[in-house]
Amino acid sequence: MVVVGIMSPDDDAALLTVRGAAAKARPERISGDRRWPDMQQQISVITLGVADVARSKAFYREGFGWEPVFEQDDVAFFQMSGLMLGLWEKAQLESDMQRPGVPPGSFALASNVESAEAVDAGIERLVAAGATLLRPADAPPHGGYRGYIADPDGNAWEIAWNPAWTVDNEGHVTFGV
Amino acid sequence: MVVVGIMSPDDDAALLTVRGAAAKARPERISGDRRWPDMQQQISVITLGVADVARSKAFYREGFGWEPVFEQDDVAFFQMSGLMLGLWEKAQLESDMQRPGVPPGSFALASNVESAEAVDAGIERLVAAGATLLRPADAPPHGGYRGYIADPDGNAWEIAWNPAWTVDNEGHVTFGV
Repeated sequence: MVVVGIMSPDDDAALLTVRGAAAKARPERISGDRRWPDMQQQISVITLGVADVARSKAFYREGFGWEPVFEQDDVAFFQMSGLMLGLWEKAQLESDMQRPGVPPGSFALASNVESAEAVDAGIERLVAAGATLLRPADAPPHGGYRGYIADPDGNAWEIAWNPAWTVDNEGHVTFGV
Repeated sequence: MVVVGIMSPDDDAALLTVRGAAAKARPERISGDRRWPDMQQQISVITLGVADVARSKAFYREGFGWEPVFEQDDVAFFQMSGLMLGLWEKAQLESDMQRPGVPPGSFALASNVESAEAVDAGIERLVAAGATLLRPADAPPHGGYRGYIADPDGNAWEIAWNPAWTVDNEGHVTFGV
């Protein structure tokens, strides 16, 4: 489903709040151009390029307790809450992206759990399964409790208890409570 | 919600299929250890570290047509299909992760759309909004149609039409049709 690209007055107002050099350097209003529809506000897949798919599958299975819905030697997919997590042999992902060599990346995935105790237990289990501890869990200024680990390929995961966001029984996360 | 860590016989059978040097080098069965519960099979947040939050917000708004549910100068959150997409000032993310400097990353996010034509239109719009084209869209051997772009910080997005996976009206993606 693609939402038809008609903007509401609110959208126009929000666009006007975009400031800074980057916005000034690109004055034309792309969204104001009716040639292209908006894309549905969703993420369908997160694919991580991994050096050893068997190792990564074992890590996600043992560390998080997750079972793939599909697996081959070179790829595995996990059905997540409304999207797919893919583990794909890194050279194949790079070839598919037509982006040889690994560019710098700066990102973190997060798994929100139901309590501070569950954060500690999750991190302990992930480290036992082969994760590298990046940040032992503590309480951030904005509330809750969180720590970070890296998977065997260095992909960062935050394990967090965030009382300000709702996670329903199916794992769907909503901003606010 | 955290699923209680009792494994089914199927889980045990699946674990036994994990082969290779990595699995052999770590013989103890973490999942067989009942100390830690499984984590809910979900991704709560994807946070991208970005050099210029205003520039990134403008890109996601203009390129995808997405509106943030929360925004400050240094951070923005978009409510996605069951999870949040965060754009966070890179130095702050690195500080929060306690991981200074940007480690190599190899990953792609994907936005699945409803037709090959929507893939072309989406990529055209994203490039007009400042994306770098990585791979012009074409048909992969396994079917469908897809191309890749990179956002202003180099984060890869696949724009794909995948007739083998279901995307419902709320954007939730399910493996298979």
